[in-house]
Amino acid sequence: MDFVITIDSQADIPLYRQVYEELRKAILSGRLAPGQKLPSTRYLAQSLSISRATVTQGYEQLLSEGYLETTTGSGTFVCRRLPDDLLDTAPVESKPQVAGSPISLSAYGVSLTERSLFRLPEPEAQISFSYGRPAFDKLPLDLWRKLLSRHCHANHDVLDYTNNSMGYQPLREAIAAYLSRSRAVKCSAEQIIMIGGSQQGLDLITRLLINRGDWIAVEEPGYLGARRTFLAQGACLFPVSIDESGLLVNNLTTNIKLIYVTPSHQFPTGALLSLPRRLELLAWAQKSGAMIIEDDYDSEYRYGERPIPALQGLDQGNSVIYVGTFSKVLFPALRLGYLVLPHNLVDVFTRAKWLADRQSSLLEQYALTDFINEGHLERHIRRMRSLYDQRRQTLVQSLFSHFGDKVKILGENAGMHLMIKIHTTLSDEEIVQRAAQVGVGINPAYPYYLKTSPGSEFVLGYAELNEQQIQEGVHRLAQSCQRGKESRSQTRQVCAEGTATGKKMSE
Amino acid sequence: MDFVITIDSQADIPLYRQVYEELRKAILSGRLAPGQKLPSTRYLAQSLSISRATVTQGYEQLLSEGYLETTTGSGTFVCRRLPDDLLDTAPVESKPQVAGSPISLSAYGVSLTERSLFRLPEPEAQISFSYGRPAFDKLPLDLWRKLLSRHCHANHDVLDYTNNSMGYQPLREAIAAYLSRSRAVKCSAEQIIMIGGSQQGLDLITRLLINRGDWIAVEEPGYLGARRTFLAQGACLFPVSIDESGLLVNNLTTNIKLIYVTPSHQFPTGALLSLPRRLELLAWAQKSGAMIIEDDYDSEYRYGERPIPALQGLDQGNSVIYVGTFSKVLFPALRLGYLVLPHNLVDVFTRAKWLADRQSSLLEQYALTDFINEGHLERHIRRMRSLYDQRRQTLVQSLFSHFGDKVKILGENAGMHLMIKIHTTLSDEEIVQRAAQVGVGINPAYPYYLKTSPGSEFVLGYAELNEQQIQEGVHRLAQSCQRGKESRSQTRQVCAEGTATGKKMSE
Repeated sequence: MDFVITIDSQADIPLYRQVYEELRKAILSGRLAPGQKLPSTRYLAQSLSISRATVTQGYEQLLSEGYLETTTGSGTFVCRRLPDDLLDTAPVESKPQVAGSPISLSAYGVSLTERSLFRLPEPEAQISFSYGRPAFDKLPLDLWRKLLSRHCHANHDVLDYTNNSMGYQPLREAIAAYLSRSRAVKCSAEQIIMIGGSQQGLDLITRLLINRGDWIAVEEPGYLGARRTFLAQGACLFPVSIDESGLLVNNLTTNIKLIYVTPSHQFPTGALLSLPRRLELLAWAQKSGAMIIEDDYDSEYRYGERPIPALQGLDQGNSVIYVGTFSKVLFPALRLGYLVLPHNLVDVFTRAKWLADRQSSLLEQYALTDFINEGHLERHIRRMRSLYDQRRQTLVQSLFSHFGDKVKILGENAGMHLMIKIHTTLSDEEIVQRAAQVGVGINPAYPYYLKTSPGSEFVLGYAELNEQQIQEGVHRLAQSCQRGKESRSQTRQVCAEGTATGKKMSE
Repeated sequence: MDFVITIDSQADIPLYRQVYEELRKAILSGRLAPGQKLPSTRYLAQSLSISRATVTQGYEQLLSEGYLETTTGSGTFVCRRLPDDLLDTAPVESKPQVAGSPISLSAYGVSLTERSLFRLPEPEAQISFSYGRPAFDKLPLDLWRKLLSRHCHANHDVLDYTNNSMGYQPLREAIAAYLSRSRAVKCSAEQIIMIGGSQQGLDLITRLLINRGDWIAVEEPGYLGARRTFLAQGACLFPVSIDESGLLVNNLTTNIKLIYVTPSHQFPTGALLSLPRRLELLAWAQKSGAMIIEDDYDSEYRYGERPIPALQGLDQGNSVIYVGTFSKVLFPALRLGYLVLPHNLVDVFTRAKWLADRQSSLLEQYALTDFINEGHLERHIRRMRSLYDQRRQTLVQSLFSHFGDKVKILGENAGMHLMIKIHTTLSDEEIVQRAAQVGVGINPAYPYYLKTSPGSEFVLGYAELNEQQIQEGVHRLAQSCQRGKESRSQTRQVCAEGTATGKKMSE
């Protein structure tokens, strides 16, 4: 055991006394816990470059005062029962020190202290319709473990600093081929940079393209994680409304530097950006000189609808940065995503990635390469698509059978969540609270609006829940909404508790 | 296989013709490669929501024109030998498109385009004294694989988004206990945030504390990765010289917002910051209101010298952010490090971590927790310390026996590298080139200086090399330095090639 104490051979205090004082302080401050074993006198003497006799003398003083005890053949330990009076005299240091001038944060740091940027975590619920989570019990984890093991050996490359912050070349090639096949993205591996999930991508894009005060257009309603990133970096947000064909491109103005869109499955409404709107958006970007962030977070799952090529593949003018992730297809804790960049941005993003964290996990990049190249990814997606399709249908049927014409369902043709609009006199908070009271977690859509939300909209993720849970969850939700209003005060109280003990944060 | 093409049922062109045109374009542009299998007509029809007969008609047209071929029982494929005249008519899209207005970068982005920020990669050498790399063949990889496997199962927590961007609580507790024992760092788990390696830590600290134009004091010479981060974010650098007791604290002035130090083993000189200087530095920080970044990148390896407590543990005034990493102790591609923060900075760093990449790899955090708590970490460090100690002694002896009094050795009492100063008339570039010519890679120290370097200084890492390689490397280095100057022009040529094919970047 390494144990560091401060010894000053120039000081007037004898060395054995310094050993004694330092150890005593360590015991009293809790750095050495009752029952903890001390290093041997020989070891400590060596590591402090002092004589063993000196250390022994220090130890003996502590033994005689009751701080230490010995057990024959086992060594010296901190006494399990320290006399109370010893502890009383301790110079207590366990409380956080508050001293020095208050720390002055950067402009970025100050932005982050604005509470409004971050939502409260969702309460944990028995049946949680949280979005963005896959069917954990259907993941090919045995295979994933095998692939990790396959590469976790003394091949320096997988363990070393990489010479290329863009990521593992064969993985980038596999992704380029996959994107070309399945999303009509036109790119070579040289345009792909591996990142630690799409959040890192949004952060890097904003850092590299946006100065404080620049305008970013965002979908209204839209994804909070992106909005937070933009606001933290001082951008001004220009909300653009959504209809059933996606973004209302006509509403865009000039002076916009960047636009963030989720065209495959708009978050949260689920709208699919139509082909004419896509072409219109690209033409606008070309004309205005704006860059487009195309966040294709769950495009793998389409149910029956005709696929529309990615904006990136339709683009003729280097206007699109495509953001992809494996967190939805595989699992959220796999921090691997990618950016597909116009050629003229590759160098600066590679450098920014180096400065951000040098490289993403190589072991996982190697495993993922095999996962794609051996056909597992597309097989897994097919399997999940059919599973999620069933779950989606179950959810839609349950909603109609319990809410009838009081519910409108949006964006159910793709992805892992849908949005509902309920005809009700209850407020959004009341509905969330009533649901929580019967063990059901749902996300209201109002936080996704920059301007006033129309209300009564909720986002329901279904990928993680089995059919029985979905049916039961909708049943309870419907019942809780139909209950009389007399129980309202009680509801509030339960919810307050739920919030306090809440843990999961969907976003 | 998913395959996306654009079909517009509103268009005047018949659908079968659209299928034909789209596939033909895909073949000619290389999106569909020769020999590649096409989706079945049934599958494609379904995914495009058109009739199978339409797709079949499109396929048949392509077959008759020689773009496709069929193999009975296997399906339809892109023809392996496309007639040249077909390819000649192709609308070639393989070249990067250059169109639209040039992209305007943010101030941060512009900083990154300054070439001087990034060095050329080191050429790969047969015997490379590169620093920061462990003895890869002595790593406990079987154990590491076992620990990864142990946690890679359907426990949602390890696969899911975390509710706490600070990192896995038991790991942070294990690190707090370890730091208290071995580095006299005083902290609780609540002050520790897991990060993706120390580079991410430096990036976050700079973002949160530094505005463009703020002053940061750095060691002279000092670590390039930190300097790059500071410069990219617009800081002004104030270099502070080093002597054998570390940083010359007296030279510090006011108006400094942040100071970056490597007190355990100054990079690159290897100086250990003495206790009086530490106390002086802390007093200065308290008085001036500056924050100290204590980068303890390889403090685990000390050889005989008395350990000095970390600045963090000596600090009375919330002035120190301690940065630690597992990249040196385990392996560089393990992107796990940590920050120990003053209490008043924990919240804002947690938010910044969320915005940067939400969370670091949970699977590796779980494995690392067991690695520490089951005693493997400290055992591994002990084993490596004795191994590196031998290698260090071999290097020191080899240097003296080959260079005699023409070499001065600095900073050999700790870490995984030392610095040498050679008495020679050759320039640094000549020495590096001559070494490269005989298959030896060494890093000159001049890039680590902001001001003029004294020259003839080199950094030699030894942890990765066995004793034979070290002896052979020093032998070759000495011989190449002693060679006459007539071979110089030849040397240059070889080096130029070396640089062109070079791959590894130490920093």
